[in-house]
Amino acid sequence: MVRTTLMARNTDMRWRLPLVCLLWEVAMIVLFGIFVRFNPEADAAGWQKEKHHKNITSDVENDFYFRYPSFQDVHVMIFVGFGFLMTFLQRYGFGAVGFNFLLAAFGIQWAILMQGWFHTFEQGKILIGVESLINADFCVGSVCIAFGAVLGKVSPVQLLIMTLFQVTLFSVNEYILLDLLHIRDAGGSMTIHTFGAYFGLTVATILYRPNLEQTKAKQSSNYHSDLFAMIGTLFLWMYWPSFNSAVSSHGDAQHRAVINTYCSLAACVLTTVAFSSMLQKKGKLNMPFLESRLRIQDTCGVHNLHGMPGIIGGIVGAVTAAAATEGVYGKEGQVKASTFTLEKLTVLCYTGTQDAATCGILKLPFFGDPTDENCFEDNVYWEVPGDEEANLYCMHDSNEKSVTDQ
Amino acid sequence: MVRTTLMARNTDMRWRLPLVCLLWEVAMIVLFGIFVRFNPEADAAGWQKEKHHKNITSDVENDFYFRYPSFQDVHVMIFVGFGFLMTFLQRYGFGAVGFNFLLAAFGIQWAILMQGWFHTFEQGKILIGVESLINADFCVGSVCIAFGAVLGKVSPVQLLIMTLFQVTLFSVNEYILLDLLHIRDAGGSMTIHTFGAYFGLTVATILYRPNLEQTKAKQSSNYHSDLFAMIGTLFLWMYWPSFNSAVSSHGDAQHRAVINTYCSLAACVLTTVAFSSMLQKKGKLNMPFLESRLRIQDTCGVHNLHGMPGIIGGIVGAVTAAAATEGVYGKEGQVKASTFTLEKLTVLCYTGTQDAATCGILKLPFFGDPTDENCFEDNVYWEVPGDEEANLYCMHDSNEKSVTDQ
Amino acid sequence: MVRTTLMARNTDMRWRLPLVCLLWEVAMIVLFGIFVRFNPEADAAGWQKEKHHKNITSDVENDFYFRYPSFQDVHVMIFVGFGFLMTFLQRYGFGAVGFNFLLAAFGIQWAILMQGWFHTFEQGKILIGVESLINADFCVGSVCIAFGAVLGKVSPVQLLIMTLFQVTLFSVNEYILLDLLHIRDAGGSMTIHTFGAYFGLTVATILYRPNLEQTKAKQSSNYHSDLFAMIGTLFLWMYWPSFNSAVSSHGDAQHRAVINTYCSLAACVLTTVAFSSMLQKKGKLNMPFLESRLRIQDTCGVHNLHGMPGIIGGIVGAVTAAAATEGVYGKEGQVKASTFTLEKLTVLCYTGTQDAATCGILKLPFFGDPTDENCFEDNVYWEVPGDEEANLYCMHDSNEKSVTDQ
Repeated sequence: MVRTTLMARNTDMRWRLPLVCLLWEVAMIVLFGIFVRFNPEADAAGWQKEKHHKNITSDVENDFYFRYPSFQDVHVMIFVGFGFLMTFLQRYGFGAVGFNFLLAAFGIQWAILMQGWFHTFEQGKILIGVESLINADFCVGSVCIAFGAVLGKVSPVQLLIMTLFQVTLFSVNEYILLDLLHIRDAGGSMTIHTFGAYFGLTVATILYRPNLEQTKAKQSSNYHSDLFAMIGTLFLWMYWPSFNSAVSSHGDAQHRAVINTYCSLAACVLTTVAFSSMLQKKGKLNMPFLESRLRIQDTCGVHNLHGMPGIIGGIVGAVTAAAATEGVYGKEGQVKASTFTLEKLTVLCYTGTQDAATCGILKLPFFGDPTDENCFEDNVYWEVPGDEEANLYCMHDSNEKSVTDQ
Repeated sequence: MVRTTLMARNTDMRWRLPLVCLLWEVAMIVLFGIFVRFNPEADAAGWQKEKHHKNITSDVENDFYFRYPSFQDVHVMIFVGFGFLMTFLQRYGFGAVGFNFLLAAFGIQWAILMQGWFHTFEQGKILIGVESLINADFCVGSVCIAFGAVLGKVSPVQLLIMTLFQVTLFSVNEYILLDLLHIRDAGGSMTIHTFGAYFGLTVATILYRPNLEQTKAKQSSNYHSDLFAMIGTLFLWMYWPSFNSAVSSHGDAQHRAVINTYCSLAACVLTTVAFSSMLQKKGKLNMPFLESRLRIQDTCGVHNLHGMPGIIGGIVGAVTAAAATEGVYGKEGQVKASTFTLEKLTVLCYTGTQDAATCGILKLPFFGDPTDENCFEDNVYWEVPGDEEANLYCMHDSNEKSVTDQ
Repeated sequence: MVRTTLMARNTDMRWRLPLVCLLWEVAMIVLFGIFVRFNPEADAAGWQKEKHHKNITSDVENDFYFRYPSFQDVHVMIFVGFGFLMTFLQRYGFGAVGFNFLLAAFGIQWAILMQGWFHTFEQGKILIGVESLINADFCVGSVCIAFGAVLGKVSPVQLLIMTLFQVTLFSVNEYILLDLLHIRDAGGSMTIHTFGAYFGLTVATILYRPNLEQTKAKQSSNYHSDLFAMIGTLFLWMYWPSFNSAVSSHGDAQHRAVINTYCSLAACVLTTVAFSSMLQKKGKLNMPFLESRLRIQDTCGVHNLHGMPGIIGGIVGAVTAAAATEGVYGKEGQVKASTFTLEKLTVLCYTGTQDAATCGILKLPFFGDPTDENCFEDNVYWEVPGDEEANLYCMHDSNEKSVTDQ
């Protein structure tokens, strides 16, 4: 009884969620109308001029054909990969897939605008093409990572606000790193993984819930929820070569990025299995491999999964780039590869603190965040079809007990 | 007891289904042998001539490379997308995926022939290439949509007969719209969505079952069946840019179709979430988003999902095309885009009535359609592994009750 | 009590699995460091030379762009396709997906080395590019097929040892067939399917367990495990055109391979449904279609699924190639296609016996294979989240009985 009242007080989304969604979608449409135009490769008149100008005879030389397959792979990673990766919680599958879907769909629109203003703004217009779509997906990828740290503990309205802030900050950060400091960040180890992980952890810290240990049962997985999570894990793993190569320079660079990612990923599986087995007292494995054990306040273990690896990736990248010689990369290759500097690491520091300030807004009381006992529970924000059955089960369990007690 | 007898009388597929499958497959093989040949891009001798004729030096200029990635995406939409979209019914997952698989596999063969006779028939032969495969998948997509309206209420034999009629009518309709009336139908809003939806609704009306309300329980979903349905939903959503651009003209047009679809789809998610939340009295969301509430006789809600949007798409397309100016599309672009006319809407009207006549045949009594109480139940046409357990559960529930009653 | 002791004795992987994984990964890294280099299309300096040498002006003429989409499809087949295909066992989903993941990740590394030494070894170095990745995936595909025959009956350490042997033998076999005997093996009917199936069956025979009938219950599927298996089945089916065409010659040959596979696969669905329905006494269908009934010692029915079809494919290929005339394929085409000979079948015979000897090693007692009662049970090698509940259910079932007995 008490529980129902609490739910009603806190988490009724009926007007808040539609209002935020519609308001922001209207804003997006207006801003797209004012600012967004096709770039010359996607514009009818522009492409005619481009072909004439560059002496191109065939329509299939449009850059579209050499970016689109990778784009679709990245798209699957964002929506199926991240969405299903987080379905392991036994009562939060709808939230994992559905809220990931919602925040990513909003995020890519805002990312196209933000990244456009910083990178492809010409004569008052943002010019977009298939590469803009890939970059928007990347940006949203960092929000999906951050979502992992607060999974089950926030309302959809809070998630949308978090997305707005994170995409904004991501774009500023990316502009500073790539455009001002001329850092090369292959695979987005800094801009996407490290940034996403620490942004999420900062939000999780701000929204810290001291009494969350009580809901331990809901934070566990079950047999089928783990298999659903494996769908996400595998799609993330399989398409990672596309993620790392989607916006590489054409030719040898893109080819190489794929090969390197493929080989590294295969090696990682063996190492992960080895440590997973070694750390369990009977040598059993966990599902999915890449998930660390659940820890309160960092639901998905994003620190281990994206934070530390991102920093390691940054350092290794710096060392490798410093060691790149003309012999290995050829004269042209070296110019492309060696612009990476250690400034990268300095920039990292300010990022972690910067978002702390901006997202304090999330603690405001009217965003419909769940009470502690409603965390990790789809029933709060979703019509759950099995709910009557679930209640039946509870009753039946207690009957069971009384029978046994007889 | 009575139930088993009814099932045996009505739905034993042992000879009817194999007979129809083998008969039709033999017919397909014979017709393919007589009529189907590779087009010049796929034929060994033809491609040598084509290269010589068009002064092409490289094999990678074959159109295959600029259509194939989109084809595979569309293929995934048809089989995984539509198949899993309809797994939400708790006891009809096998039927959803399996019958969708069956009808699509048959449909694409018949579609290659029908579309071939209308579009690529030369000197007594149908010439096929990768674009034929995409068009066959599109055609079958409209059957998958119609399947949604009769899901759980028809036998596999009825579905195969429906597919035969629908593919035939689809091809005639497509020929009239695209070849005779020179209508441009980007994304197939008329030929695929509207046609598929109203064909399916017509069939559902013909097969109307007045007493179906009784099986309400079976028409509901459960927690995991909804997550399976989300796999289908996401693959349909993610690959929609490929669906809308797969047969576009190469270059800027294909590029633009992808960007437009990507942005529109993102906007739709927010709008759908807003309305879904607004229409539920506690603001909770449904899974999957795009599914309307289940209503008897239109299992999947195809009217809302494909019918109305298809018509809206047609009207908006007409208005947009009328407004296209030389300034926006360039001289060449305008010629390509502006052939759309309002005749489109006129044609729609005859389609809805035409199929009513042809598919009356489905009411004939010997196709093995299920009784009302066997609707939405895999057990009728599939060996269901958990069945003994299911019975056990039923028994056990009644035991439970008697224990409680003591 | 006894059971726990047996488990501890036999199947504790804590040191054996990590040791094997790390040892082999270190070996891989050392061997890659010594032997593996990028081929000219993937190497920075090499690609500059290649462009200059072949008078190529654009980076998008890199072979990467005409192989990569197919590669990604094949990659999905190996990891999601084969992984989920085998999830039908109700208590072995983690093992199916997870061990497939593990063996494939190890296998592709060893395959790159083995196939490299045989095929692309120049001046002491193995030169790799995107085609090497596809070929490594193919090779591992044959291991996944063999895994199907021993599914649920071996430990992860045994699987890794089996993978090491099978990849080695696969590469030798492939070298003899393709390089020495100049056999054309489109779709890998001999090298992948027949080899994989009979290798797996040989291993299953060597590891024969006479008393396995007792665990019949665990060898069955349940409703949701069958739906998970359908995900695997569909991805294997949908991407088969990519599998068969991924390393074909560019141009018409690759185009044709896709069309032929697409049409054949569609025809197979109808035939399979027909026989599936005909062989069941009430005409009901099985899930998934392509799975034969479970038979002890060949868990997945690989003989029916890959063995026989592979041999049939070989014979049909031989007949077809013999019948290929200049008229159909053009002069150049014929030279490419007609090198197939019946020697193929002779070679097959030695393969089956060869692996019998080499994999006898798997019977050694210290690899942690499960006891008969632990077969087909995830609990042995995995932390299973629902386990406490599973135990609860067992207890509760016996309570149930006693209640009923009263």
